[in-house]
Formats: sequence, structure tokens, C-alpha cells
Amino acid sequence: MGERIRGFGSDNHAGVHPEVMAALQRVNVGHVHSYGDDPHTDEAVALFRGVLGSEVEVFLAFNGTGANVTALTALTRFCDAVICSDTAHLHIDECGAPEQVAGVKLLTAPAPDGKITPEGVAAHIAGRGDEHQVRPRVVSITQATELGTVYAPSEIRAIADCAHEHGLYLHVDGARIANAAVGLGLELREVTGDCGVDVLSFGGTKNGLMLGEAVVFFKPELAEDYRRARKQGMQLASKMRFVAAQFTALLTDDLWRRSAEHANAMAQVLAERVRPIRGVEVIYPVQANAVFARLPVDVIPILQQEFFFYPWNATRGEVRWMTSFDTEAEDIEAFATLIETLLSPTE
Amino acid sequence: MGERIRGFGSDNHAGVHPEVMAALQRVNVGHVHSYGDDPHTDEAVALFRGVLGSEVEVFLAFNGTGANVTALTALTRFCDAVICSDTAHLHIDECGAPEQVAGVKLLTAPAPDGKITPEGVAAHIAGRGDEHQVRPRVVSITQATELGTVYAPSEIRAIADCAHEHGLYLHVDGARIANAAVGLGLELREVTGDCGVDVLSFGGTKNGLMLGEAVVFFKPELAEDYRRARKQGMQLASKMRFVAAQFTALLTDDLWRRSAEHANAMAQVLAERVRPIRGVEVIYPVQANAVFARLPVDVIPILQQEFFFYPWNATRGEVRWMTSFDTEAEDIEAFATLIETLLSPTE
Amino acid sequence: MGERIRGFGSDNHAGVHPEVMAALQRVNVGHVHSYGDDPHTDEAVALFRGVLGSEVEVFLAFNGTGANVTALTALTRFCDAVICSDTAHLHIDECGAPEQVAGVKLLTAPAPDGKITPEGVAAHIAGRGDEHQVRPRVVSITQATELGTVYAPSEIRAIADCAHEHGLYLHVDGARIANAAVGLGLELREVTGDCGVDVLSFGGTKNGLMLGEAVVFFKPELAEDYRRARKQGMQLASKMRFVAAQFTALLTDDLWRRSAEHANAMAQVLAERVRPIRGVEVIYPVQANAVFARLPVDVIPILQQEFFFYPWNATRGEVRWMTSFDTEAEDIEAFATLIETLLSPTE
Amino acid sequence: MGERIRGFGSDNHAGVHPEVMAALQRVNVGHVHSYGDDPHTDEAVALFRGVLGSEVEVFLAFNGTGANVTALTALTRFCDAVICSDTAHLHIDECGAPEQVAGVKLLTAPAPDGKITPEGVAAHIAGRGDEHQVRPRVVSITQATELGTVYAPSEIRAIADCAHEHGLYLHVDGARIANAAVGLGLELREVTGDCGVDVLSFGGTKNGLMLGEAVVFFKPELAEDYRRARKQGMQLASKMRFVAAQFTALLTDDLWRRSAEHANAMAQVLAERVRPIRGVEVIYPVQANAVFARLPVDVIPILQQEFFFYPWNATRGEVRWMTSFDTEAEDIEAFATLIETLLSPTE
Repeated sequence: MGERIRGFGSDNHAGVHPEVMAALQRVNVGHVHSYGDDPHTDEAVALFRGVLGSEVEVFLAFNGTGANVTALTALTRFCDAVICSDTAHLHIDECGAPEQVAGVKLLTAPAPDGKITPEGVAAHIAGRGDEHQVRPRVVSITQATELGTVYAPSEIRAIADCAHEHGLYLHVDGARIANAAVGLGLELREVTGDCGVDVLSFGGTKNGLMLGEAVVFFKPELAEDYRRARKQGMQLASKMRFVAAQFTALLTDDLWRRSAEHANAMAQVLAERVRPIRGVEVIYPVQANAVFARLPVDVIPILQQEFFFYPWNATRGEVRWMTSFDTEAEDIEAFATLIETLLSPTE
Repeated sequence: MGERIRGFGSDNHAGVHPEVMAALQRVNVGHVHSYGDDPHTDEAVALFRGVLGSEVEVFLAFNGTGANVTALTALTRFCDAVICSDTAHLHIDECGAPEQVAGVKLLTAPAPDGKITPEGVAAHIAGRGDEHQVRPRVVSITQATELGTVYAPSEIRAIADCAHEHGLYLHVDGARIANAAVGLGLELREVTGDCGVDVLSFGGTKNGLMLGEAVVFFKPELAEDYRRARKQGMQLASKMRFVAAQFTALLTDDLWRRSAEHANAMAQVLAERVRPIRGVEVIYPVQANAVFARLPVDVIPILQQEFFFYPWNATRGEVRWMTSFDTEAEDIEAFATLIETLLSPTE
Repeated sequence: MGERIRGFGSDNHAGVHPEVMAALQRVNVGHVHSYGDDPHTDEAVALFRGVLGSEVEVFLAFNGTGANVTALTALTRFCDAVICSDTAHLHIDECGAPEQVAGVKLLTAPAPDGKITPEGVAAHIAGRGDEHQVRPRVVSITQATELGTVYAPSEIRAIADCAHEHGLYLHVDGARIANAAVGLGLELREVTGDCGVDVLSFGGTKNGLMLGEAVVFFKPELAEDYRRARKQGMQLASKMRFVAAQFTALLTDDLWRRSAEHANAMAQVLAERVRPIRGVEVIYPVQANAVFARLPVDVIPILQQEFFFYPWNATRGEVRWMTSFDTEAEDIEAFATLIETLLSPTE
Repeated sequence: MGERIRGFGSDNHAGVHPEVMAALQRVNVGHVHSYGDDPHTDEAVALFRGVLGSEVEVFLAFNGTGANVTALTALTRFCDAVICSDTAHLHIDECGAPEQVAGVKLLTAPAPDGKITPEGVAAHIAGRGDEHQVRPRVVSITQATELGTVYAPSEIRAIADCAHEHGLYLHVDGARIANAAVGLGLELREVTGDCGVDVLSFGGTKNGLMLGEAVVFFKPELAEDYRRARKQGMQLASKMRFVAAQFTALLTDDLWRRSAEHANAMAQVLAERVRPIRGVEVIYPVQANAVFARLPVDVIPILQQEFFFYPWNATRGEVRWMTSFDTEAEDIEAFATLIETLLSPTE
């Protein structure tokens, strides 16, 4: 048999949430002005202000790389650096866009569990001062992290304080910010602006949108040049209403929360279901919608034939299983059963 | 009264064609791999090959700026220049993205009717040769042009020959390539690859998509680094199937042609309807879906209150009226009637 | 016979003034700190402040491209544009360094005699405002111009006022600022800071240095990030004392003035000597150390065999003759005599 | 008392070798063409070919950052990465110029003694392949390293083989290539081209020039776009003869070797002289002209008052002492005596 209709490859392997699809249909009436000068965009921005604070400036972009890189463009100058974790998507998976498009150098801090620390940040700030070195200007953290862990508010606050003390901004790559908030049982604002976050890339795509990320400035003055950063960074949709409508859906009736709660819950079910299986080791705390596990290496390709997922470190037998808004309990049961079967000693 | 439901502001003020919306719904089933490694993207690519040639390499991007700039990135090196018209969108309306992201210098050639000539290209090539100057590497033309005119195949061929003779590539910004093909009564391939075009930005958004542009390489070897150009240029959709499905719709049952034919026909109707009105002058040939006209300057804001459109040169009373796939004959009649009323001498 | 020991190719074909060479020898004693943290650099800066104003910030760079581009880097952000003449060295002869290294787009203004006007500047500023276009941030003029003409103080002031009124800075590419000041009979400060110039690239190389240009900020706050712009722009000399010593020589006993006066005077002599020759037309006012002339095209290569110079517009028979600090009256007489001979009707 | 006339701060704190100064004087006669089109530049290039191979292409630049970055510009495209050591000057001390000007991302490999290994290189190459990641294209090593150690020819060859096997080039930052060759007792070619080096930044400034570095391509086809990389990278001297003449001096009568032998010998003397002193630990092999030592932290500032040098890791009491072509035996003796005095138990 081939691949199942749903695997554990990524939350962006899932499709579009029906409420989002309905919203797209709903705004498809007549002409409206382009590039965001339309009532649908105004509506989405108002909803964002409702959940994140009335003072925020919000702009919509196409994708996560675009949101992150244009945010950094707006925050930095030619000689600036961004401090991020050595496993950050920004550093590993954006094909050099931060360096080439935003024109920043990345300085990496260690993050064994996906999370950097104020000490890691401070080590880079200490070196600054002379013209032979770039100037740290932004700290960027990923929430939830690339390893499925979540920064506690106190951890974010500590990093924010360290950053602000030295004149740096705190940016959050929130491709999975909804999963993080839900994992912490907190509101979106409580895990962002209230912790001292200056700029947030608010992820939509991985939480059931067709596409769309928002760049949120908690200090409006930082947004001054963002519109041009977005346009030059090729993230300005002409038919903006169709990006906006998706966020309107996501922020209506707490769809963001419902979807993230479901995905997170499925990750918990999966983790608990496989944890007792001999030969399986869950290697990071499961705090959002990812389960990282270690398996016997020969089992991995057999599993992948039926349920797609990505190896994380192939030689060490480490794999990543992502759940999404549409993961079903039966997907997990079937998957775990297959793992059990493959790992059981044959009589 | 306020603005009408449809004006003449831009073909990107229009919404999404119902067949495109249906296609989006159709592919929203289960999980598929991300970033284009999915059967829906394969299907769109196959359809492109059907209309443009079996040898083409096709990649999907978010928007026109993105398609243009990533195409140029793939074609050039640090010291290269792109020759384009002095009214090119690339030069005027992309906030420096070609320079800042693709890292090219633009060399402009005169184009009184929106079209550059081999002579204009040759003038820049003549200066090349020493290290103090950038090296022309690409000629980029817009088809249909920013002024609503259309290059004849012989004109494209002449520019292509001039470019190729000197080792340059010919890129076409085809944000309105469908309108151009229809305006010429030709197939898409006949106005692109058959004329010597090397790379085409194939526009979807202005012809009824929600969003989406394709970058088409007629010489596959030119596409070698394009995937990284797209990723770094932040144009790689994770849920690619939803961009692909739109193009599948556009290329099915000639939707691209039906929509463009309608828009072009509406522009003809509009032009013919206003031409006899005293005080209105149609200033460029109407060859696609735009009508450029000169009006008494005091009339313009009154018109705009009811039918939105953009001034082109406000002080000279020049305006641009765009039609789209959903423009209706009654929109035009109402608009023209209003113009007549405003310009008629009161008794 | 071959080329003469001195021609009219460029003021950078000349060597190093003996007083400059002596200064290099003089500072070649022992060790000093690198990168400008040395007493010789302090001395040069103090001399600059003596002639340009006690408030200026001064930094030394290797060459003119480097001084111009790093100055623009310090003054601009990713979305900014620089307005310059369409014949500016910046636009024509720096191989795209402003675009690629400083990351700015150049907007050109017409300059039939090498000089732009407030109207030309204003035309670009008028278009600014929306995110689809770059933001003019700097006006850059060349003094003396690439055509050997010189802006009068009132002309600079008018451009500065226009720039400042709209929040732009005025940069002067002063590769030949000494020739301009001398041509106007004014002090260096009178043709720069006193006219509203914000940043000056102060040329040394073309006025008898081995190499070296200075970037002078008349508003110290604009210099904030310049040190890093210079380092990243690869213009920071490690053994800085040897650049500094050259400027110390140039600013001692008015060497800059003596050299420029000589070069300018030689240009006057040359212009007056050839003006009466039938077949020679001097085509721009001779206000610095360049003479532009039109000659019968067949005569040009014969002349060049003996006295090297550059054609300016080969097809129109336009040539450029530069004089320098070491041009001798007999060079001019021999050159003019040869022209006369070649243009005289043979009996 | 203040600082001594010579310290151990850097080999670029030294001045200009008298033979180099004489050469500058010698070429200061009459006019020659600019930008390297002159007989003095031809002479220097011929001498380079004599020592490095008749096939090499050689270009002169202003400084080390400039040589390195323009070399990388010529070797790479927008999506390429450079693998270097985590202590590389390129990574630590060039203010982001590789990222911002050459447009490359740096991937760092561990180098506890300053030297990377084929394994470190291979680890980065292994990850390559998909569009989400930059493409390793160049390996850059520093010879002698930033820690005063030297790669053996077999070590370079092993890295070159690893690089070439995967389609990467090997670049050497040879700011101290002469010290390395001398340290190995080999000719310049034996430690570069003969080991598989593709491109060499040949350092002059640290070995007694006033300023000047050469970029040497051992495979001429790699130099194709270098001239424009140098011009755009603002490294093209107009009065090139004065850079060329310095290299001519350096390559005449083995001045490069004589100077480097002296500096290296002085480092050996210094290391051997301080090694027996209780409280001093020499921490890396002394293979070129640097001695790295660990000292009691309170002694360091006292020493620095008389003999300037840089701390390497202040908190660990690690310092760097550089020797140069003009270091004298008495400098070392006086310095070591002072150390002894400071570290001796007072009776």
C-alpha cells in the first residue's frame, strides 16, 4: 500500500481549514483596492489588535521566510547582526535569505533543547563594540521551537530584558505561535507583547491557512519602514483581501486556538502511545505539536512508506513527527500499531 | 453615492474567477508533500508544458515582483545589468527589489509607447566591455506593456536576436501575457518561446487568480539555480498545491484565453465608446485590457468618486482605465455616460 | 615615436607629488597602532578641521568609489535612493557598486553641462511617498563635474535647500573638489559646508596623492555608523598612517591649492591655445582642469599616439583632455602644435 | 615611560620596508595609464608568475578584507556558502563583508588549533542538496592561521581533495602566506598551487608593504569576472603602479622570504625566551610569527603600558604577541626581562 492520506510530515502538509476556505469564498465579491487598502484587511488588522493589543501595527505577508526576513530588514542596518539559535529555521532552512536579502549576519547561540538563553545572547553582545565586528541588533527566537519545545513566559522575558538592556530588539519567529500559546495555556498576547517581544512573525500557514503570515510590531515606531521592506521583500500581495480573510477566519471564534489545541493534543496522544514501546525513545519534551523520537534506523524507511515523516538526524535514528489541525486519533493509532508491530520480537 | 462595486482601477482589483475558486476547493483533501513535491504541482507543470512546449521548466511563485526578481537572480551575477524600458514596472514600481534582491543594475531604454527597440538595447550593449561598467546580461520587456500596448512577434524576435547576438537573455514580464496573446490572436507559445524569449514571468493574478505567477524557462539549463533563487527570494509556497491548482484551472478549457478575451473586448468597447466624446482623447493604441485617456483635469476626481481608477499623469490629465475578466458591459456604459454628462456643455 | 612622458589622459595618470612622497618617508618610523588609532591620523584630521570646520568628522578611505559608496551606505537604508546626474561617475563608472554594496537605487536627473538642478531633484522627490517606490534620501553631485564644469556656491545652496526641505542629505563627490574651489577662487569650506553640503568625498588621488580619499561629515551625527560602513566596504587601511600622512602633506602650506591652481591654469592655457585652431571646438566651459573638445575624428588616433587622452564620444569626435599638478607648459605647446599641424591644410 | 617604539601588537603596526619605500620612489616618474594598464603592474605580475606558476592570473587589491571578499565574490553566486574555521578572520573580523558584499553565507567548522579538517568540511557538504539550504561552493582556510599555526602541505592537499571532489574551490586567506611558507621551509608555490589551492589572497601589508594584497587564481578560468568583482568591491587602485611597485620589491631578491624569516625567527626567540618563565604558558605551536601565551591576568596591563599587544581572551589571560620584519632581538629581550621581573617572587 502507498502513503496514507495523512502522515506526520509537517503541519504544512495539511490543507486548508474549512472555515478559512469559507472566508475566502465570502470575500470574493466585486472589486476592492489592492495591496491592503481594502476593508477586509482593515477587519483582519482590527481582530489582531483585539487579541494582541490596540497599539500593534500588523502587516500581512506570504510566507514564514518572508515574514521573518522582512521583519529583520525593517529592524536592522547594513552592519547589524541577529542572534539566533544554532538550530533556528532562520539559520538552517532559509537558504541564506537573512544574509542575502535582509543583509544581516547571524550569530548563533547554543540551544540543546531548541531554546537559547540570556547567557547565550550576552556572549555575543559582550564582543561588540568595534568596527571590525557586526553589531548585534536583534535577538530572534522561535516559538514553539524547531524541536517542539516552548519558551516559558519567564524565559522570554529574561531574553527580552537582556536584549533591551543592550539596545537590541526581540523578534519571535512564531510560525507555531498558536501551538506555543496553547501549550502554555495562555493568550497570544501573554506569550508575546506581555513578555517584551518587540516584533512577532505570526504564523498562519502551519495552523490551517492556505498561506499567510503576519508581521506584528508591538512598538509601532519600529514599523516605520516596514511597508517598503515588505514590498522590496516581495511579500506584498496585490489581492490582499484573500490573505486578510484567512486571518479573519483564524481570529474568529478562536479558530487559531481550536486548531492548535487539537494539534497539540494529538502530539500528546502520539507521544504517550509510543513511549512505552520498547525501541522508541521520545527525546524532547512534547510541548507543542511535534514529537521527536529515536528509533532503530532500519525501521524508519518501512514506516515512511505508509506514513510520511522526516528524519531529523538519520544516522542517529532521530525522527520528527508533526501533528496538525486535521490529524485524527485513528491516524495515530494506526501509526503506533505499525511501530509496535515492526519493533515486536517475532516469535 | 459611493464607489461602484467594479471600477477601472486595476485588473488586480478584481476577485478570483469561480473556476479558480472551485479548483482550490477541489485540491483541499488530505495531506500532500509541501514545496511543490506533490501531484497537483506536477499537473500544473504538465499543463504549462502542453501550451508552452515540452521542454520548458516551470516554477510557481507568489507575485509578479517575486517572479521577475527571482528570474533575474537566476540569470545574473553580481556585476550584471538588466536592460528595460524607462516605464518598466521593474524600474518604477518594485521598490528597488531588482537592485537590492537580485543585485542587478537596471539600464533603461526609451519606450514612448511602452516598447523598447533593438536600437535602445544596442545602445547599452555598445558601452560594455570594461570593468568600470556593469555587464548587460538580460533584456527585460513587459508584455502587454505598462501602457496597454503589445509587442508584435516580429518586434520580440528582433529584440531577442539583438540580445542573443551579444550573449544576453530575453526575459518577459508577462503579468498580462494572456492579454497580449489574445490581443495578437496568437497562442501563448507563439508570443514567447517561438519569438526567442528565454524566460517568462507568466502572470496569473491579473487574469483571475487569487495569487500566483509562474517562472518559465524555455532553455532548461537556465533554470539550474532557480529553485534556490525562489527560496531565497521568499517565493516558495509551502502549501504549493494551492498555487498550482489555480494554474491548473487557468490552463484548463482555455480559461486564460476566455478571461483575457473578455477583458480585452471590454477595453475595446470602452475605448470606442469614449473616443467620440469631446474632451476625451485616447492616447495609446488599445491592444490589451487598458485604455489610457486624456481628460480635463477637473473632471477626473468627480469620475473617481463613482468609478475608481488611477491617474497616470495627473498634471496632464492622463488616466488609466483597466478592464478585467469580470468587467461588465453595463459598467462601461454607466461610466461612459457619466463622462458624457460631465463633459457636455450645460444648456 | 611613442607616447610622451606626460599626456592628457587623466589626473590619475600623474604620479605622486614630491611633498607627499616626503611625508610618507617621514612617518615611516617605528610601530604605531593600526586602523587609524595613531597620531599621524589625528594630525591629518586636525588639519581637515582647520580648513573645513572644527565640527567635522573625517575618515580616510582608499579610493573614490570607496569613499562615495561607504558614505552613501552610512546615509541610507535598504529602501532608499540617491539622486544624481545621468553623467555621474557614481552611475556610469562604478560598476554598480552603489546598488550592490550600498544597496541604493540611483535616480538620475538630466545634466547637459554636468550639473543637475533643484528642478531635476524635485521631479524625483515628487514621486515619492508610497511603498512601491524607493525613497529618495540623498542627492549626490560631483564637484568639479565629470564635464569639467563647476557648481557655483549659489547652485549648491539651491540644491541643498531643496534636499533639506524634503529630508534628504546632500553628498558631494569631490574627487576634484580642490580644482572646483580654486576655479571659484574660494576656500574649501566655502564651497562645501557653507553651501549646505552634508557629506563630502574629498579627493586626494587626482590631486597628487599616491592614493587616498577622505569622507567628511559636516553633521557629526550622520557619521554614527560610518566606521562600520568603511570596514565592511573594505576601505579601512591597517597601516593608516600612510594614508593620513598624504593628507597632512596635502593640507600643509596649501599644497592642495597650489597643485589645483597649476592644473587649472594649464587647462586654461590649453583651451585658449587650441580655441583659435580651425577644426577644434571647445564644448564646455573650462572651469577646472578639464578641456572637452570636438575634433575631426580621423585626427584623434594620430594625436593619441603621441599624447594619450580619452575619447568622450568617439562617433561625435568629442575628447577629454585632463591636466594635472605636473602638467608642463611645454607639454601643452607641443600638443597644440601637433594639433595645428594635423589640421592645417597642406599646400 | 610610555610605549616603546616597537611592540608586539601586530605585524601591521610595523612600517614599510626600506626596499619597498625605494621602489615607490623609483616608479614615481611621469605619467602612466591607470587601473593597472601600465608596465609596472606588468612587471609585478610577471614576478608573481615566476614564483607561483606561469599560468596564474594575478590582480592587486588594497587590503586583506578586500582581497578575500572580492575573491569570494568572483567564485560564488547568490545561493552559495563558504566553509571556514570558526576563528577565521573572515567570520570574526570583517564586519560582515563576506555576507553583505560577496553575498555568501559562512558555514563554520571547528578549528581548535586554528586549522579545519576535511571532516569539518565534509560535515557541511553532507547537508547540501536541497533548495532550503545554501550551497557550499568554497572552502576558505587561513595560512598561517589566526592562531599562529601552519597547515602542512598534506593537510592542505587533503582539504583541497575533499573540496574538489564535491565541486568546491579552495581559497586561502594568505595574509601571512610568506610566514607560513618560511615556517614550512618551502617555496610559495609548494604551499599553494601545488597543494591544490585554487585562489590565494597573497598578503603584502603584514610583510612590510605600505598596503597591498594580491588575488592569485591558479586556474585562470576562475578569474573571468574578477576584474568587475575588484572594481565593484572598491579595490581597484587608479594609480596602480604604486601598489604594483611594492610587490615588485617584495618579490625581488626574495624580500618576502627575508622579511618573513626574520619575523618567524623572532617569534621563536620570544617563545623560547619566555617558555621557562614560571607563570607563562605558550599555548599553541609557534610555527609562524605569532606567540600565543597565557599569563596571570593582573600582569597583562602592566606589560601593555610598555609593550603594546592585544589580549586574545582577556578573562583567561590569553594574549597574542606578533613579531614583524623589523622586530629586533633587543625588543624581545627587554620584553622578556620585564615579564620575568613582574612574575618573579619578590624577596
